[in-house]
Amino acid sequence: MKACGVIAEYNPFHNGHAYQLTQAREKAHADVMVVVMSGNYVQRGEPAIVDKWQRARMALTNGADLVIELPFAISSQPADRFAAGALQILDALNCQTLAFGVEKSEFDYKTLLNEIAPKLKRPQFTVNYTKTYATQWNDFLEEKLGQRIEKPNQLLALSYAYANAQLDRPLELLPITRIGVAHDDLNSTASYASATAIRQLLLAGEMESVARFVPYDLSLFSDKLLSWQDLWPYLHYALNVSWPQELTPIYQMSEGLEYRFWQQNQKSTDFDQFLQLVKSKRYTYARLRRLALYTVLQVTAADITAASTVDQPIRVLGFNSVGQAYLRELRKNNAAHLITKVTADLGKPSGSLGLQVRVDRLIEQLTGVEQNFRQHIIMIK
Amino acid sequence: MKACGVIAEYNPFHNGHAYQLTQAREKAHADVMVVVMSGNYVQRGEPAIVDKWQRARMALTNGADLVIELPFAISSQPADRFAAGALQILDALNCQTLAFGVEKSEFDYKTLLNEIAPKLKRPQFTVNYTKTYATQWNDFLEEKLGQRIEKPNQLLALSYAYANAQLDRPLELLPITRIGVAHDDLNSTASYASATAIRQLLLAGEMESVARFVPYDLSLFSDKLLSWQDLWPYLHYALNVSWPQELTPIYQMSEGLEYRFWQQNQKSTDFDQFLQLVKSKRYTYARLRRLALYTVLQVTAADITAASTVDQPIRVLGFNSVGQAYLRELRKNNAAHLITKVTADLGKPSGSLGLQVRVDRLIEQLTGVEQNFRQHIIMIK
Repeated sequence: MKACGVIAEYNPFHNGHAYQLTQAREKAHADVMVVVMSGNYVQRGEPAIVDKWQRARMALTNGADLVIELPFAISSQPADRFAAGALQILDALNCQTLAFGVEKSEFDYKTLLNEIAPKLKRPQFTVNYTKTYATQWNDFLEEKLGQRIEKPNQLLALSYAYANAQLDRPLELLPITRIGVAHDDLNSTASYASATAIRQLLLAGEMESVARFVPYDLSLFSDKLLSWQDLWPYLHYALNVSWPQELTPIYQMSEGLEYRFWQQNQKSTDFDQFLQLVKSKRYTYARLRRLALYTVLQVTAADITAASTVDQPIRVLGFNSVGQAYLRELRKNNAAHLITKVTADLGKPSGSLGLQVRVDRLIEQLTGVEQNFRQHIIMIK
Repeated sequence: MKACGVIAEYNPFHNGHAYQLTQAREKAHADVMVVVMSGNYVQRGEPAIVDKWQRARMALTNGADLVIELPFAISSQPADRFAAGALQILDALNCQTLAFGVEKSEFDYKTLLNEIAPKLKRPQFTVNYTKTYATQWNDFLEEKLGQRIEKPNQLLALSYAYANAQLDRPLELLPITRIGVAHDDLNSTASYASATAIRQLLLAGEMESVARFVPYDLSLFSDKLLSWQDLWPYLHYALNVSWPQELTPIYQMSEGLEYRFWQQNQKSTDFDQFLQLVKSKRYTYARLRRLALYTVLQVTAADITAASTVDQPIRVLGFNSVGQAYLRELRKNNAAHLITKVTADLGKPSGSLGLQVRVDRLIEQLTGVEQNFRQHIIMIK
């Protein structure tokens, strides 16, 4: 079976995602669409609006055949690590093509991604307190490519091209032009809206406005909807009961950020205020949100190292009959460690899914919905 | 001026406390009544129902002349350490008498406290997994005294007698027989009820029922009323995002209790359930509640050591004109480090009130009421 892979967050899944899956299946001549999807925490450093099970269901009922969880240690990382981790999983799953969304744009993506990007050598920037890493990176790309690449999806596409070039057997890159509206806009008549716009509607309680942007029943939003507002009391608490120096083991807590976090927390009454107070020229909001996420989840550098070095199982969240057939084929021919449930052994503190289980426990506390041990895989007819 | 000291929690202050202060002043021929009162966390391992400022005000308007804060590192300890720490403060404040409540009882308190108790040698018990420390201690007392001493206030009185005997210049002990009802009972016609019974009424929202048991305006209960129910989400979270071994630095977290706490947390949906699940023959509920309190406040053994060894300032919460005159006298003749406000220096992480400020931050988060830096001392005309 010919497999086409997609890297996604589906936060939440919408008509644009369904369109992308249809296009990809056709253009890649794929027998099976394999999606690697962020678990309960997404790349911009926040909890997904609904849990991974609801989001996997949205995808499986609208074009995906097999949904795999992108583990926390990858999904909560900057674009380059996010892309590299996700591509390694798609590679292990024998995907031949990677389909991904790009803006309708001025770029010649084919040339850029397949010829230029793999040959670019990522520079090591010296510490610069007046520019974010992202800005320095964009400056570098402008110098090399003659044009700035600033939209998140453009950067992500470049990151995919890079990561892909590192694989022994790179996948075929298949950029799919997005349709509908720009990533963050909300057009009042179209049936397409960005995930960001849809999240805003959902969190504002305007559930009925969302119906025309999504291809599934709104009952999939019946669990508690999550945002940083739900995590803030716990972050605030965690910083309140800590000494600043106790924050240093937190992953990415460097360059005095522990003092900044600790001090500004005491002046903050909500997460937005906190984020604005800790913001500086040196760090993007995404970097700081991810750091806040590591803090509220008490994720240390040692946790990330452990979750990255042990032989990580590849976790299936759900499939339909096509996905199931492909899984069977993979299990016959492939060495990938595929699992469909979290055993007590995998999920214990020293187990290879220990971190995953631990970070999901906060989601369980907030929603009351079991995320791992007693949760059944999703099977769609 | 002749000072009589009282060690109290006033959680909350009630008519029985007012009676005790009147009796003590008269019997001790005291010019000034000095109260050392637990701050925002009390000895049974929970937050006080209202903050230390409201409780100091209750006392100062009803018989106390000077209210001093008993620091967290003392107030959250078992009876023997609680008594020893509080007595050292009263001693430093030149109190000549210690007045304390005792049950109307069969004991000859005068002989017991002044002659027998100071001579008892506290035994070191070997670890016994079938009896709590308290039970072993009671067995020992029964052997020495010929009678069991089991009520909390009887044990506390004995602890006072012990601790007092350790002082270079012991205070005169003045037991005051409690009036009204037994410690935990609620008599429907009397004007006396125990603090426990009053807390239950308050937390059940039966504010008006409380009026006849307290000698002050009920508006002193206008802040959020606190109980373990308010702390539970944070304890649950803190255990959810931890590995068991990360709990070992917590003060008193020994003998595998970190695993017990960590595992039972995952089965618990409220604090009562959690406490019942972690209970064993070896530990009293009070010990486990205190351990849960150290955990939610992330108080380590090192924190307690630091707060116990540095030269602790004695913190005034409030006074009336008599108390103020006494403070003036103390400042002239006495070396005690008396403070009436928490400076930035005292309250910083390495400052001698750093721990106090840190544990109070959770109270500030829950109530929205400043507890330290910008809080003014209470002055009653």
